[in-house]
Amino acid sequence: MNNYRLTIQYDGSRYKGWQRLGGGESTIQEKLEHVLSELIGDEVELIGCSRTDAGVHAIAQVANIKIEKEIDANQIKDYVNRYLPQDICVTEVAEVSEDFHARYNAKDKTYLYKIWNKEYCNPFMRKYSMYVQERLDLIEMRKAAAYFIGMHDFTAFSNAKSKKKSMEREIYEINFEEKDGMLNIRLCGNGFLYNMARWIVGTLIDVGLGRRKASMIPAMLLEKDRAKTGNLAEACGLYLEKINY
Amino acid sequence: MNNYRLTIQYDGSRYKGWQRLGGGESTIQEKLEHVLSELIGDEVELIGCSRTDAGVHAIAQVANIKIEKEIDANQIKDYVNRYLPQDICVTEVAEVSEDFHARYNAKDKTYLYKIWNKEYCNPFMRKYSMYVQERLDLIEMRKAAAYFIGMHDFTAFSNAKSKKKSMEREIYEINFEEKDGMLNIRLCGNGFLYNMARWIVGTLIDVGLGRRKASMIPAMLLEKDRAKTGNLAEACGLYLEKINY
Repeated sequence: MNNYRLTIQYDGSRYKGWQRLGGGESTIQEKLEHVLSELIGDEVELIGCSRTDAGVHAIAQVANIKIEKEIDANQIKDYVNRYLPQDICVTEVAEVSEDFHARYNAKDKTYLYKIWNKEYCNPFMRKYSMYVQERLDLIEMRKAAAYFIGMHDFTAFSNAKSKKKSMEREIYEINFEEKDGMLNIRLCGNGFLYNMARWIVGTLIDVGLGRRKASMIPAMLLEKDRAKTGNLAEACGLYLEKINY
Repeated sequence: MNNYRLTIQYDGSRYKGWQRLGGGESTIQEKLEHVLSELIGDEVELIGCSRTDAGVHAIAQVANIKIEKEIDANQIKDYVNRYLPQDICVTEVAEVSEDFHARYNAKDKTYLYKIWNKEYCNPFMRKYSMYVQERLDLIEMRKAAAYFIGMHDFTAFSNAKSKKKSMEREIYEINFEEKDGMLNIRLCGNGFLYNMARWIVGTLIDVGLGRRKASMIPAMLLEKDRAKTGNLAEACGLYLEKINY
């Protein structure tokens, strides 16, 4: 079998997320699989690294596909980019060893969350960031962020349905970068539960607005009660930025 | 009379340009005048500096409005931003002397044209730049651009209907900046005829693709025949960036 790794960029606005849903729902995985199956002449299954939610974007999602046929990597790239809608594109295709698995082999992932924090909105970024009009207190947000670093049970920061799987994840870093009104928050960790990045950022925003105290985070983590965390930050501000293997 | 200068940012995608058209057509001027008239309690006329075309964006359009009432500049700004749609925002309101005129007093204007020049599209910039897949020859484009500098009759680079008015304009500078696949072309001049920035950029793109030679520009300017110039560059790549007074 030939194994190809695809790096994919998308504007998630129009889609019900990454994962195939069937029933005519439009997802990124389905769009890609459809175009790839036309190239290959057979049904294909794409293994994506992260199941981004509806409306979430990706700067560099990674997926792999195993096929019998040997096709030149650049030919795959050119073909899919020609037939994909303009809000999805494949920035790289590489032939990889047969045991490469886009999900299992990922070492860490970085999510980027963009917040437009000015007294007036940003017409160009309105679909690509969350708009927070009141001034955010970055010092308090940084204090709150520090409590998330390390290995924790993130039950309180996820909508994950299955309670059988481990809810522990390790966050390596959360950093803040502010420029001309745009606040970029980057979260790097070994994995993220369903909605986890958005729950963490939503809670950081609450702290930044003075609605919650940074010092409340450890108790939120321990009590595992989602009702006590902040709000879910909007999907349109979130980007899957980078995956390391 | 009190005179206020407004600095306005907009995503032009949804609009038929800046200028009021009447008949239910959606234009930026109408949206602003509608909200301002509700604040002031009377009909108002906004004098815009540049009549940007349908689909063209603005980073800093300037307009002024004369009203009898004296209202705090910040109050105007807050009010209009509260009621404007999110693709238009007023970034600044200042009280100015009674003789300030947004159009007549402008010394120079800078238009920014964004071209995404990679072998694959950019999902996030697809509505905010023109996509040119073939590699552009920047050296030739720069040579071509140099011929536009100075005072010229731009009849061949405009769709302007009135032939009575002067078609002479002076271009002070055209500069190129390329970063990670995004080419920014900035055109600074004392004024631009209808569609002129887009005709110039369209012709530069033709030169960059080898369809026309840079050395043909002087003849195009002299012959004043629009049929001999390049194509009209797409509206979605153009931004009114800056106006100096």
